[in-house]
Amino acid sequence: MKLSELVVKTRKDFPKDEVSVSSQLLIRAGFIDKLTAGVYTLLPLGLRTTSKISDIIRDETEKMGASEILMPSLVPKEKWEATGRWKSFGALYRLQGADEKEYGLGATHEEVVVPLAKNFISSYRDLPTGLYQIQNKFRDETRAKSGVLRTREFIMYDLYSFHADKKDLERYYDKAKEVFGKIFARCGIKDETYYTFASGGSFAKYSHEFQTKTEAGEDEVYVCKKCQTGLNREILDGDFKCPACDSNEYDLIKAVEVGNIFKLNDKYSRPFDLTFTDKDGQDKIVLMGCYGIGVQRLMGTIVEVNRDKDGMIWPEEVAPYRIYLIGLEGREKEAETLYGKLQEKGVEVLLDDRDLSAGEKFADCDLLGIPYRVVISKKTDGKFELKKRAQKDSALVDFNELIAQVGS
Amino acid sequence: MKLSELVVKTRKDFPKDEVSVSSQLLIRAGFIDKLTAGVYTLLPLGLRTTSKISDIIRDETEKMGASEILMPSLVPKEKWEATGRWKSFGALYRLQGADEKEYGLGATHEEVVVPLAKNFISSYRDLPTGLYQIQNKFRDETRAKSGVLRTREFIMYDLYSFHADKKDLERYYDKAKEVFGKIFARCGIKDETYYTFASGGSFAKYSHEFQTKTEAGEDEVYVCKKCQTGLNREILDGDFKCPACDSNEYDLIKAVEVGNIFKLNDKYSRPFDLTFTDKDGQDKIVLMGCYGIGVQRLMGTIVEVNRDKDGMIWPEEVAPYRIYLIGLEGREKEAETLYGKLQEKGVEVLLDDRDLSAGEKFADCDLLGIPYRVVISKKTDGKFELKKRAQKDSALVDFNELIAQVGS
Repeated sequence: MKLSELVVKTRKDFPKDEVSVSSQLLIRAGFIDKLTAGVYTLLPLGLRTTSKISDIIRDETEKMGASEILMPSLVPKEKWEATGRWKSFGALYRLQGADEKEYGLGATHEEVVVPLAKNFISSYRDLPTGLYQIQNKFRDETRAKSGVLRTREFIMYDLYSFHADKKDLERYYDKAKEVFGKIFARCGIKDETYYTFASGGSFAKYSHEFQTKTEAGEDEVYVCKKCQTGLNREILDGDFKCPACDSNEYDLIKAVEVGNIFKLNDKYSRPFDLTFTDKDGQDKIVLMGCYGIGVQRLMGTIVEVNRDKDGMIWPEEVAPYRIYLIGLEGREKEAETLYGKLQEKGVEVLLDDRDLSAGEKFADCDLLGIPYRVVISKKTDGKFELKKRAQKDSALVDFNELIAQVGS
Repeated sequence: MKLSELVVKTRKDFPKDEVSVSSQLLIRAGFIDKLTAGVYTLLPLGLRTTSKISDIIRDETEKMGASEILMPSLVPKEKWEATGRWKSFGALYRLQGADEKEYGLGATHEEVVVPLAKNFISSYRDLPTGLYQIQNKFRDETRAKSGVLRTREFIMYDLYSFHADKKDLERYYDKAKEVFGKIFARCGIKDETYYTFASGGSFAKYSHEFQTKTEAGEDEVYVCKKCQTGLNREILDGDFKCPACDSNEYDLIKAVEVGNIFKLNDKYSRPFDLTFTDKDGQDKIVLMGCYGIGVQRLMGTIVEVNRDKDGMIWPEEVAPYRIYLIGLEGREKEAETLYGKLQEKGVEVLLDDRDLSAGEKFADCDLLGIPYRVVISKKTDGKFELKKRAQKDSALVDFNELIAQVGS
């Protein structure tokens, strides 16, 4: 992509009510635009990054043998009434159509996926199985002040699993824990993300959250000094004792919840009577798990964890482009040639061909946080100056060395 | 994908209120599931097909130099009020949050894209440009009886273009007409789709629709016998005269509108004061065009046009898989081997490894409408029986011939 052809530009300003640093950066860099509190547009660079996050999630989830579907947002009132959530779900947007039919806007999808599964699950042979989607969610958040970390509308990955017994649910749950760990590692926040015990609601002892350490987080988490397991402060009763290793030494951190996994057991299968026939011909209730990641929140968290005073620093796998290419001092034509050669090699490259000063281009390059900067100028003498966004030093390389270092 | 691992199964039944033949087939084949009138879930096969349609749309649109974004569905009341549509847009779902803030659920996105463009368009140098999205739309349809051809929630492609003058808008509009033609050709409905003059509203003489001939359509279109141009019956005043060639000979057909292009002129740029500075330093209003395709409706229309008594017949580019592979009479292992080899070659293949009779497998193969059927049995004698879904004859081929004929 040539920056001259991108309608979206970097900005010096951002909305006054935007207090979240990650969202300020994402707005200034032209990744997102704020429509109103808690509601954002994904601009081309932001859409590329969220698509890369979604593709990582798909890639890891498919390895679990789950199938992707896409459920609707208009969920009829009677489905929510069946589980009691029409009244109890505080953050549900409720609306009415011209025919007086009422809907709750999908804030989570148990009320859709369970009736759906009834069409296809009838025997033990159909279990275990998993259905997931990457889909738009709506939540009527009373406090939408943390930018993309807490929004009223957001893309969410939600996986639902179906099991014949508790043992199989446990096995899948442990596997999901691993898969989530891989997803967060590929998104570049592994070292700051803690597997955290949290409330299991009325039907399970615990759920588990993946909490990423950042001052921008709204949660407080006790992290065991010995085994690094987290415990959400909300469920601490008395003195801290690590739920994994019994140690009582901890750090108290601020964190943002980037993922959540939950043993639903029969909480949602029972209201819709989702049963199966086991090997002995007995009808039994299906047990379920659910597993979720908010995609824009994950994007914002990556920025909170990977930035400096000049801008964002994207981990390679989720960066919208791999190389930010600049031609200076009359070397614009050489930059254009390299741009073509890199595209031929399948390297995702942004060419800054705008009529701006070198200083402005370097500043935007740092703000956007593209992993590799390549400069061609009089000084580079037929070679290319390669610099990593996260490092200070640059090196002069030829084309083959460039490809070898940057990859594709 | 192995059919034994796909949780979704084909069905003999469908909801009693589903009168649309294409939607009955899509439900029976496990492409979609009906949640309630006008609201559907995309199941794995349906999601694959709509993704392929979306990818074709992206591919052709990117050639116009437009950039992809993703706008939200929660559009604040004040944006709709600025254009007068809070009151006048009949099919708008309106809702209120806990903080009493009101929203209209995005039924179209002029009210979002114009304020957004104000952040980035200020000079003639920024024009022309285009922004598009493939995003979920909501419409409070009073008659949602045509299955996926008319729904209350659907994925829509909407492109918005921005111009300095009428001449440039005309040029882009003509280009969009070409691009839409290519999209419908790649989706396999070129021969049945007519470029049709329709109402231009209060601010343009005409808009143009792409109308596909099918008895399932809700529109009536006069098609000129001489030049094949369409005229929507809604705007016929007096006797028919072709708006393109003045001929008065026509066929009257039933059709479904698969695409619509519209010269908005200054209808939406003016309320938001979207202006630019021209070469002479004068401030002028930006002119706009908009261009839309409903993705599920397009999927349904493809099925209406490409089917027989046994099921659907997918055009190759939008088929969820390219090959339906069956191993019979103890040749299941050979089928599994071929499955692996085809996957290595990048061919999208469904392996029917279920414990069902040959007749049941053949029936599902026809119902699903996968373009190529490959059978391995005692009779095929080391070769593979290849049959096109749309044809009766089959041929025995070896692996290289198979790849050559099927492609990837």
